Amino acid sequence: MSAAARYGEPGAAIGADTAVLRVQLEHRSVREFGPRDVTEAELEALVTAAQSAPTSSNLQPWSVVAVRDPARKARLAELSAGQGFIERAPLFLVWIADLGRARRLAERAGAVICAPDYLETTVIGFIDTALAAQNAVVAAESLGLGTVFVGAIRNRPLEVAEELGLPAHAVAAFGLAVGEPDPSERADVKPRLPREAVLHRERYDAAAADAHLPVYDERLRAYNTRFGLPGTWTDRILARLKGPESMGGRHALRETLFRLGLPSR
Amino acid sequence: MSAAARYGEPGAAIGADTAVLRVQLEHRSVREFGPRDVTEAELEALVTAAQSAPTSSNLQPWSVVAVRDPARKARLAELSAGQGFIERAPLFLVWIADLGRARRLAERAGAVICAPDYLETTVIGFIDTALAAQNAVVAAESLGLGTVFVGAIRNRPLEVAEELGLPAHAVAAFGLAVGEPDPSERADVKPRLPREAVLHRERYDAAAADAHLPVYDERLRAYNTRFGLPGTWTDRILARLKGPESMGGRHALRETLFRLGLPSR
Repeated sequence: MSAAARYGEPGAAIGADTAVLRVQLEHRSVREFGPRDVTEAELEALVTAAQSAPTSSNLQPWSVVAVRDPARKARLAELSAGQGFIERAPLFLVWIADLGRARRLAERAGAVICAPDYLETTVIGFIDTALAAQNAVVAAESLGLGTVFVGAIRNRPLEVAEELGLPAHAVAAFGLAVGEPDPSERADVKPRLPREAVLHRERYDAAAADAHLPVYDERLRAYNTRFGLPGTWTDRILARLKGPESMGGRHALRETLFRLGLPSR
Repeated sequence: MSAAARYGEPGAAIGADTAVLRVQLEHRSVREFGPRDVTEAELEALVTAAQSAPTSSNLQPWSVVAVRDPARKARLAELSAGQGFIERAPLFLVWIADLGRARRLAERAGAVICAPDYLETTVIGFIDTALAAQNAVVAAESLGLGTVFVGAIRNRPLEVAEELGLPAHAVAAFGLAVGEPDPSERADVKPRLPREAVLHRERYDAAAADAHLPVYDERLRAYNTRFGLPGTWTDRILARLKGPESMGGRHALRETLFRLGLPSR
């Protein structure tokens, strides 16, 4: 089984095996795509899978915009740190944390709702959007498609909202490029932290968990070296989290959410 | 296929069929559990599935605490609006949005990182935790287990952090009760919004999407009536989102995150 690749540890295995687990364990990000289109039937299957995910109190606080128009994909790529694979993917899904639908329901009913003013409800929006989108990812992979999430869609949320015609109280949470994987792409299953570094029993034990980080640093260094990338996991995490200069404009998210009608107080 | 149940619409179907889609479309929340335990092999498979989900910049900003101790489950149930199924589930997973691991890395390296101060990074924590947990949900279902998410774990986050011994910069994002479904539970696949209400093409079209809401209100009223529950979807959404009084204490999330070391500025 592919637990060995998942952990970068030749002896790793799990004592369970289902068609779902096989698809999940083989996940990798796909950024190079073959020529075939994603069919309408596939798109609908991805959205139905997404809608089948759990959602808090059945709020369903998300929407998704399916973008196929090359010019629009190019503009969204430009707004997302210029990542060219967005343009090259046949389908780009923009997942929207969407409190606007409920606000419109309230307006039509002449009702006042205040919960959407709070950070808690914004968080529900992001969480439920993520639960839905992850179902779409695994569904896509089961159909032989590949995907990659694009967090950089949050770099310039106001311009993305304008490009997609988003109503008030809605924000692009992340993008998802979808297409047929190009088998020539140099990429592989990326090793994750040892299970013992993230799984705690009964209570969180930081010392026991963190004891597994040095071996992971070496595993990821070995993986990175295969792809000509420098550094350990620690090096890369610390660089990524350095500060506003490493965040692509996203340090302003709180102010931006306010301007989009998600005050998050 | 079960698209008909998913949409509460007898003619609904999707033009794709994989083992993954079949598991996803049959999802329902499970709150009554049979007597058998969740094995260690199953727990490890769920966590490996979770770790196989995508994560922003490979940050892996989450942890999970597996709770089996009956007394601890009872205390967590008490802290989560008294939901008794938490106690009755053999396994309760508490998913942690965890910026603490990276903070500890920085401390040990003598490095300063500022990105975790920002709401953007808190949001990454919640999103990545959700992507991971949804993989665990689908993996569990593929193994014949049932689950239900518990957002009410956010009702009293400081006490939950104390109960689980969470370090600074970590917050319980949601719980997940896991066990063998009790087949006698009165529950079914809950119909979701028509696909056209959430899926937009190229640009968001609120009028076209919202035109599908009245028929959904009637479908959900019919579903609710089967289980002795009153009201349409609109009725229930507006009640759920009324204001602080409908939020179980979660309107204070912003202040609570600050106190837990996630300033989210």
